[in-house]
Amino acid sequence: MSQHFNFTPGPSQLYFTVEDHMRTAFREGIPSLSHRSKKFDAIYRETTEGLRELLNLPGGYQIFFIGSATEIWERIIQNLVEDRSYHFVNGSFSKRFFEIAQQLGKHPQKAEVAFGQGFPEGADITSNPELIAVTQNETSTGVSMPLEAIYKLKAQHPDALLAVDAVSSLPYPDFDYTKLDTVFFSVQKAFGLPAGLGVWLVNEKCIAKADQLLSKGISIGSYHNIPSLYTHAQKFQTPETPNVLGIYLLGKVVQDFLRRGVNIIRKETEYKAAILYQELERHPLLSAFVKDKALQSKTVIVADCGAHTERVIQHLQSKGMQPGDGYGSFKKTQLRFANFPTHAKEQFELLVDSLNEIRD
Amino acid sequence: MSQHFNFTPGPSQLYFTVEDHMRTAFREGIPSLSHRSKKFDAIYRETTEGLRELLNLPGGYQIFFIGSATEIWERIIQNLVEDRSYHFVNGSFSKRFFEIAQQLGKHPQKAEVAFGQGFPEGADITSNPELIAVTQNETSTGVSMPLEAIYKLKAQHPDALLAVDAVSSLPYPDFDYTKLDTVFFSVQKAFGLPAGLGVWLVNEKCIAKADQLLSKGISIGSYHNIPSLYTHAQKFQTPETPNVLGIYLLGKVVQDFLRRGVNIIRKETEYKAAILYQELERHPLLSAFVKDKALQSKTVIVADCGAHTERVIQHLQSKGMQPGDGYGSFKKTQLRFANFPTHAKEQFELLVDSLNEIRD
Repeated sequence: MSQHFNFTPGPSQLYFTVEDHMRTAFREGIPSLSHRSKKFDAIYRETTEGLRELLNLPGGYQIFFIGSATEIWERIIQNLVEDRSYHFVNGSFSKRFFEIAQQLGKHPQKAEVAFGQGFPEGADITSNPELIAVTQNETSTGVSMPLEAIYKLKAQHPDALLAVDAVSSLPYPDFDYTKLDTVFFSVQKAFGLPAGLGVWLVNEKCIAKADQLLSKGISIGSYHNIPSLYTHAQKFQTPETPNVLGIYLLGKVVQDFLRRGVNIIRKETEYKAAILYQELERHPLLSAFVKDKALQSKTVIVADCGAHTERVIQHLQSKGMQPGDGYGSFKKTQLRFANFPTHAKEQFELLVDSLNEIRD
Repeated sequence: MSQHFNFTPGPSQLYFTVEDHMRTAFREGIPSLSHRSKKFDAIYRETTEGLRELLNLPGGYQIFFIGSATEIWERIIQNLVEDRSYHFVNGSFSKRFFEIAQQLGKHPQKAEVAFGQGFPEGADITSNPELIAVTQNETSTGVSMPLEAIYKLKAQHPDALLAVDAVSSLPYPDFDYTKLDTVFFSVQKAFGLPAGLGVWLVNEKCIAKADQLLSKGISIGSYHNIPSLYTHAQKFQTPETPNVLGIYLLGKVVQDFLRRGVNIIRKETEYKAAILYQELERHPLLSAFVKDKALQSKTVIVADCGAHTERVIQHLQSKGMQPGDGYGSFKKTQLRFANFPTHAKEQFELLVDSLNEIRD
């Protein structure tokens, strides 16, 4: 199989240290480690403490390991919504979150705009939802929601829980977690790890809400309900046999990120995004799909390539690079470029130069 | 970390080929492979076709990849039970399955016997359950349910769906799947793989039952409900970003098992179980926890060690072997020994000889 440096937005290029960590894991017996052993507790602890430091997470937050971000959508609705959630829908993933609320028998509402559009000012929510769901970074369209717009929602609706999908952006966004209630991401995006693990952050209000629903006799699920996850997390354990290797590898990559420094990662992310958006602005044939600069994602950059799409793919592949396809109906006319910590500045400069070679 | 050959019943010793397969996986870019790529479809197909051959699975069965066997308990109750399931409870895991039905708001019933006991003749089920749940191999106690007793339940209750937990026994049991409806297992047991993947087998009746509940307006979950899993499986895909690497490694180990031959694996399993049970029968200080030979598990063998437990652990560790602790309240007085395909005859002979050295 010919291998390319992978710009797909997830699963994406592995973080460059992962293969070494995997070798160490085998040497240390991690793949056959009991999840009820002291050594596993230490791994759980190292991974969560590293994440707390990396994300600057307040003490009241708990960190849970879940099968996937898709599962986290379901667990958020089950545990935190009795009847009404409100969803900002501007792409395939925010839409799926809304639909899951419907499938679980709730009565969600939504504000919906077209692909490529966003919510620079939030939206007027006239109802009184229990939970507001925002997709801070829409992986399907490359639209980000500005942090100030997210915080404004919290200020306007202090009694609603605020759930933030940061699947394809963390650790880039420097969230003020005191203005949010639950946040989640997947390891196969910006953390550059093999797929098979979602990370769910919840604050005290989420724990209280799940308890409240349970005391009302509402089913909030079983092994992965918040009380069960919380009880186990106190012992640095999970309710089920988890993806032990995934939790171990995440912990190691988090340590790598900490050594590199999250501020350096953020600055490099901004530099790489800037040179690619600049190229798309100047390019005679290509352009940024997201026109409003305030909404342009730094971590998933979507290019309108129109009739040139296939040609761009082939040119990049000839240089050893694999762009991500456009999502859904944009598969033949757009390309998506992940800008994660594993994508080095030099790789991005090569990407920009290569796009620049396609002129007519 | 000092490493021992691992007899814990799961996560257990890795199958001896796994590390090589992992290296190949990295070389081929599997850890960063898109789950919507043709190459992933081919992996899904290879793994499921291999499993069909290994298990001799009838055509009507579908194979789904789920986060864990714990999740499968939940999905079985959500998708296949409107109100009443019936559970054979004789250990911690069969009990947990029953409790999950309660947590999901159903009204399960149970037949319950003490740890170490079983159901040689099934039980008189006077109600009319929608689903009967049996734990064919109780990992906590080492009690197996004879296949004929399981088939008899189906003959007596042809309208109920029959769900079989074979988490820590497959591929050893040579099931007649036409007499069952849904079966599941975990990869970190007898398949000798890193934890983080459950495999769920369902027949046409399960698919019809989930559709029926859905058409009644009952919530059967979202992304991992049977209709969603089924639709995606037709395209060799999963609804969410799955544990791609886990599915790949499972496929490779299944091919290894096929080359070795499932009948040879079964015969070796029986030989190894026979010599360990024989040793426990003759031993002056140790004995088999499960007294009824018809109920003794071939794949998880539990020894009563009483006051000698710690001494046995230390002696085995000095020989490079790690036994599994007894489960729950038996932690200090029992040991559990996994007898999986990765545990070679020579390893079992060494285990038996080492136990034999502890005489007074």
